[in-house]
Amino acid sequence: MSGSRIIGIEVEDVRFPTSDEYHGSDAMNTAPNYSAAYVNLLTDRGPTGYGLAFTIGRGNDVQCAAIQAMGEHVVGIDLSELDEDPSLIYRRLIGDSQYRWLGPEKGVVHMALGALVNAGWDLVARRAHLPLWKYLASMTPEQLSRCIDYRYITDALTPHEATAIFQEAQDGREERVTQLDAFGYPAYTTTPGWLGYSDERLIKESARAVADGFQQLKLKVGADVADDRRRLDLVRAAVGPSVEIAVDANQRWDVSTAIDWILELKEFDLAWVEEPTSPDDILGHAAIAERVSPIVIATGEHCHNRVMFKQLLQTKAVGIIQIDSARVGGVNENLAILALAKKFGARVCPHAGGVGLCEMVRHLAFFDYVGVSTSLDGRTLEWVDHLHEHFVDPATVTGGRYDAPMVPGMSAEMKSASIDTYRFSGPSQSGEWP
Amino acid sequence: MSGSRIIGIEVEDVRFPTSDEYHGSDAMNTAPNYSAAYVNLLTDRGPTGYGLAFTIGRGNDVQCAAIQAMGEHVVGIDLSELDEDPSLIYRRLIGDSQYRWLGPEKGVVHMALGALVNAGWDLVARRAHLPLWKYLASMTPEQLSRCIDYRYITDALTPHEATAIFQEAQDGREERVTQLDAFGYPAYTTTPGWLGYSDERLIKESARAVADGFQQLKLKVGADVADDRRRLDLVRAAVGPSVEIAVDANQRWDVSTAIDWILELKEFDLAWVEEPTSPDDILGHAAIAERVSPIVIATGEHCHNRVMFKQLLQTKAVGIIQIDSARVGGVNENLAILALAKKFGARVCPHAGGVGLCEMVRHLAFFDYVGVSTSLDGRTLEWVDHLHEHFVDPATVTGGRYDAPMVPGMSAEMKSASIDTYRFSGPSQSGEWP
Repeated sequence: MSGSRIIGIEVEDVRFPTSDEYHGSDAMNTAPNYSAAYVNLLTDRGPTGYGLAFTIGRGNDVQCAAIQAMGEHVVGIDLSELDEDPSLIYRRLIGDSQYRWLGPEKGVVHMALGALVNAGWDLVARRAHLPLWKYLASMTPEQLSRCIDYRYITDALTPHEATAIFQEAQDGREERVTQLDAFGYPAYTTTPGWLGYSDERLIKESARAVADGFQQLKLKVGADVADDRRRLDLVRAAVGPSVEIAVDANQRWDVSTAIDWILELKEFDLAWVEEPTSPDDILGHAAIAERVSPIVIATGEHCHNRVMFKQLLQTKAVGIIQIDSARVGGVNENLAILALAKKFGARVCPHAGGVGLCEMVRHLAFFDYVGVSTSLDGRTLEWVDHLHEHFVDPATVTGGRYDAPMVPGMSAEMKSASIDTYRFSGPSQSGEWP
Repeated sequence: MSGSRIIGIEVEDVRFPTSDEYHGSDAMNTAPNYSAAYVNLLTDRGPTGYGLAFTIGRGNDVQCAAIQAMGEHVVGIDLSELDEDPSLIYRRLIGDSQYRWLGPEKGVVHMALGALVNAGWDLVARRAHLPLWKYLASMTPEQLSRCIDYRYITDALTPHEATAIFQEAQDGREERVTQLDAFGYPAYTTTPGWLGYSDERLIKESARAVADGFQQLKLKVGADVADDRRRLDLVRAAVGPSVEIAVDANQRWDVSTAIDWILELKEFDLAWVEEPTSPDDILGHAAIAERVSPIVIATGEHCHNRVMFKQLLQTKAVGIIQIDSARVGGVNENLAILALAKKFGARVCPHAGGVGLCEMVRHLAFFDYVGVSTSLDGRTLEWVDHLHEHFVDPATVTGGRYDAPMVPGMSAEMKSASIDTYRFSGPSQSGEWP
């Protein structure tokens, strides 16, 4: 394939009218329309690379504009060079000071970078005929370590330490791959717990989740504490004593409100409390965690880069790190975050749902077990049962566990019929302005 | 004017080829093209409102797209309602959960919000025939307090505390306005110290700055420590012992490098060291500040919202807060940051330069003295002597002090001839991709 190149990019603004039935509704996001700023890396030979940024409606056009603009700078890349160095796109894009000004490493430009970086990894894994997690598992500790940008994290993780973490996980790697192929990865479900659902639907969906084999589910909370307690009682009655229940406040609280509210939910033996306050508030999370201990605090889906994750870990603000495949700087930055979590002894329980997030992030969770954490203890991967039908290689769950992805790539490819149907055609299809 | 409304917005992508002569060059931003994503709020009667987001080139189109998209939601606002409540635009935009997903409150969407919020304040001040700083000075403590969104900062600043801060500053307010009208506000200059300038130019411009009356200047550092020491020696020799010298590393260092490097510059009696590391690294700044004390650490131009400023203050990571008029959520969020700085006893020395930043932020510095800090002790406002000729109400400096702005509004209005000349016409006018 010598001489083959990335010859262009295509960006699509795809939006699903999920707000019509309150799918995805929580205390902060009352009417989301799950959307993808979707990118294809076109090549002159062999597979295309697919990536996306996930948004919840308005602004998906802005996200597409950023991917389009930054994507111009990956056109022309030689595919054999990319095969040799899958971090090439990450380094090229993160090194541009002019785009950096619009972050740095946060918000729309960083999510655009993430979509392009992931599309590059998708392409490389497809060319190697491997699902991404197995591609990562085939890399040497040194290769993995070189994927990480250590700028701003050397006070917490040095290149030497990261290499040692990947090295240590070499032992038993094949067995863990075999185990995942056979038994998959533990999942929990958020499907029953959206805030906009009726009690009847909550109970019915919770019971069904347990019948389907899930050992944990998650409820949205944070709008009204009495209502939260009532709903937790209903769910506990529906699922019995042995199923774990986590709750998610979606950043609804200030620090003191969070502490009071969480202590009001203490008797429910929660698996974790997610996003109690602003994702930017490291010290706030640390104060909350200290006061509500031993209740475990989790966050990550809105944590914008490795520098923020570093501090959440340094301050022991969270016991659970919820990586997101499409918020930070793609596979590269998530490798940094997985290594940081291992170094600081935090569990990684990724954020999924949305559009394509289950599809993509399962590769990172599977690789975390094979090549970083080497443990499934207290690890579980979010599952939300919608929108998978739009993907060529959809995530699937059997008996409460994610099945191992088998198809080459990172699984972001959408069906062209879905793109044609849900391509955004104008302002405010649904989800009205408040 | 009953019944008058905002009837539309116009957005312009304006870029100046500053990289051609290394204006604005520093250790991180080697070739910036200072640019404005410029917005006009059109009305059916009376003045137009002007605002802008500052970028350094590539991505200015993305910034414009965000302003255009979010700006649709201010069209239709009744001007008498805006006069009554100048925070209306801030609250409307910050309350939208779909745009919030792309931040929250950071990066491109937050800068777009800031540009629109500032344009609204500009409009209200113009309609009141007052420069913005005098308009703010005319508001009651309760009105000012209501401009602040207290979400996520109540653990550091309550509405009651903020009102008390504004109340306390009522005393002597008229005298301070009169004093500023007569004598202006102390400035320091960054004009001599760009990293791309030759030694000859550095010396010549430094001597000229002192001759012009500046009592402080600032040098870019961080590329090479021996070079930094040599340039500091040259400048000290050129300006004499009584002029203050600050340095700015523009986020170039990791934590341990920052500590070592700053200690290497200890003998130069620095006014402050600016942006030693990632703007996201609260704990890193705190560690640096502790180790290099009594050298003062400053940051802010890339600090993305009040939650981050709150933590920088809670951890005593910085002694100087460098607010920026166009990075955070406009006048509203800057009022929160000014009140936080007062509460925690930090000095506010705003970031300026760029395109229009001097023009806009002087209003906030002037108001800080009149209505918040009530002190000029150790306060100084950045001055960079270029691109002012493109503004209708340019910032001016006399004898090393900013003259008081006298023209109604917030001074972001650009000359139409400048817009016509520098309207962006296509990719890469200059400032090549690395």
